[in-house]
Amino acid sequence: MSPTESADAMQRMIDTPTLLLDEPRMRANIARMRERMATLGVALRPHVKTAKSIEVASVMFDEAPAPITVSTLLEAEVFADHGYDDITYAVGIAPNKFRRIAALLARGVKLQLTLDSLEAARLVADASKGWPSGARILIEIDTDGHRAGVRPDDVKLLEIAAILAGGGAPVGGVLTHAGGSYDCRSADSIREVAEQERAGAVGAADRLRRQGHDASVVSVGSTPTALFAKALPGVTEVRAGVYVFFDLVMAGLGVCSVDDIAISVLTSVIGHQRERGWTIVDAGWMAMSRDRGTADQRLDQGYGLVCSADGAVLPDYLMVSANQEHGIIAHRSGDPARILDLPIGTMLRVLPNHACATGAQFDGYRVLGAAGAADRYWQRFHGW
Amino acid sequence: MSPTESADAMQRMIDTPTLLLDEPRMRANIARMRERMATLGVALRPHVKTAKSIEVASVMFDEAPAPITVSTLLEAEVFADHGYDDITYAVGIAPNKFRRIAALLARGVKLQLTLDSLEAARLVADASKGWPSGARILIEIDTDGHRAGVRPDDVKLLEIAAILAGGGAPVGGVLTHAGGSYDCRSADSIREVAEQERAGAVGAADRLRRQGHDASVVSVGSTPTALFAKALPGVTEVRAGVYVFFDLVMAGLGVCSVDDIAISVLTSVIGHQRERGWTIVDAGWMAMSRDRGTADQRLDQGYGLVCSADGAVLPDYLMVSANQEHGIIAHRSGDPARILDLPIGTMLRVLPNHACATGAQFDGYRVLGAAGAADRYWQRFHGW
Repeated sequence: MSPTESADAMQRMIDTPTLLLDEPRMRANIARMRERMATLGVALRPHVKTAKSIEVASVMFDEAPAPITVSTLLEAEVFADHGYDDITYAVGIAPNKFRRIAALLARGVKLQLTLDSLEAARLVADASKGWPSGARILIEIDTDGHRAGVRPDDVKLLEIAAILAGGGAPVGGVLTHAGGSYDCRSADSIREVAEQERAGAVGAADRLRRQGHDASVVSVGSTPTALFAKALPGVTEVRAGVYVFFDLVMAGLGVCSVDDIAISVLTSVIGHQRERGWTIVDAGWMAMSRDRGTADQRLDQGYGLVCSADGAVLPDYLMVSANQEHGIIAHRSGDPARILDLPIGTMLRVLPNHACATGAQFDGYRVLGAAGAADRYWQRFHGW
Repeated sequence: MSPTESADAMQRMIDTPTLLLDEPRMRANIARMRERMATLGVALRPHVKTAKSIEVASVMFDEAPAPITVSTLLEAEVFADHGYDDITYAVGIAPNKFRRIAALLARGVKLQLTLDSLEAARLVADASKGWPSGARILIEIDTDGHRAGVRPDDVKLLEIAAILAGGGAPVGGVLTHAGGSYDCRSADSIREVAEQERAGAVGAADRLRRQGHDASVVSVGSTPTALFAKALPGVTEVRAGVYVFFDLVMAGLGVCSVDDIAISVLTSVIGHQRERGWTIVDAGWMAMSRDRGTADQRLDQGYGLVCSADGAVLPDYLMVSANQEHGIIAHRSGDPARILDLPIGTMLRVLPNHACATGAQFDGYRVLGAAGAADRYWQRFHGW
């Protein structure tokens, strides 16, 4: 809120729940990742799936479109509309995506596509004969058993490349994602996962090169491994997304502090159940999302960590339960005497477990700038 | 899909993930609840928060706007735009909602508002002096310790009514929601919760009447209690929402069968990890939502139960894990030999844990009508 708005006026004017974006925090997070990548000497290809916002991307790239990573073709199309013409689609492709891929290529977009099987390689080799130029294929590498990809030492890696090359589909290199980094319990274990991710991707790229394939792209990435990797020799680009906002899962991993988290849900107190120690607010799971990413971490933050309306953390006050449009806030101890006993209409912020999931529940951000500046509204898009 | 579309054409034409709505199933679900309410002799005031769709509501109400329940003021405003002028807003109010409430009243909408505290009663009594006519206040009753409300025998019930009446704010009756019904393990226990919900609401209304207050509205509701209640004497209306679509949580409660579930997510196979028994699809938690409502039921259905593209359940194949845009499908046993080994591009449907949560991830429904009819698209709205 700008300081010129009184608390009372705020309570009457701002609709809740509302997604707030603390722009100074976001800018600091963006600067931190840039500096980290500069130190490591590796290019950053940010994932725009977290923010899904052209305005946020403009801050990330100083208003000059740059290479991005997307998780949906809609992200690719919206960003292409705004001049982003170097896009990696980091989800394995299926034939029903070919029509929109061809349309993006026809617009002059340089597209990196991802696949991890002989079968997909055959489909792409066939289909790509009819595509405008601009597509390159990245073979997905499985470096931690977490999701998709071929193992770096799997014979299929070379077979896939051979099918693509034989069909005239340009092989561009390899891509991996250390999803296992989200399950780490210490900085050391994140560093180990980061090195495993790097070594697997670089080793796979070397195998491709020894067979005469182009492997100019060696793409790794996750926010934890990007920030904790000691060195990334052989890696050409890092993909990361959630660092722009950070969230409680990242704070739980030790990747950021709670005070770095740039998005929160503004909510209003609508009631109390004093004998149970509950404060009821108008943000439920529809606002926070059902993400419980901290449930398996050392410190379970429920559906979110509560702050005052101006962003000061109220330690150990959590959204302990959520219905569709009701959130229940209580002290971590469960002690009814420690109820957050605030008047109806009092506004609070709730920091999310997972920025990607909470952000997706909203159509846009109320952007809080430097002190004294008026709030702005930045749109998000969603869908596929 | 209409039978005139071949499987191959389907794989190239339909984008995935897509939210499918099986209209014949939905019509049967709507008819079942109507018949149940007719048998009980109670009016139905459906909750539109599940579908958030004017077209779905048109089917629910035979295209003639009727009384509805909403969970957000945006729902009230959108439905008011389409002629729905009798609306219960079933979430406790806060002062920042007053401006939009006054605007709805100025449009001629009859609004029932909900509150459960002396403090909210004072705020509403003050504010309502400036409102156009048409508002009535329902006092929320807590019949199962689940969320908001005053206990039926609490002295505060009469104090709240006195504050409202003293300030000239029209008391309209009581409202309760047996959220505890979702935690039941048997039909008998749902029946018990339904009777507890009924008795609490009716008892509270009687207390109000004995003090000379209007309690013409005795509103109860949840899909399980609506369908399992033996009788509802004294109740004037039932609110229920999820029955329109049903979901795996409702099937797990025994309220419906899996074959009654009217919405599903259409997804495409994008890969396999055969040694782990995984089939990877292009619907992750962004499509399914993070709702894990069956996790605490007898049969945990993961992120959803898998069906073939034509809707036949593939028993015990579940989405066992989900990333943002990747879902991992495996057999419940975890046996890699039982992998769902389907070609890349094969489409599957996934039935959701929670229709309200999965629906909210999409902008609309691809509506599958009777055999031979062309598919249609119905919009959903979201936000607050």
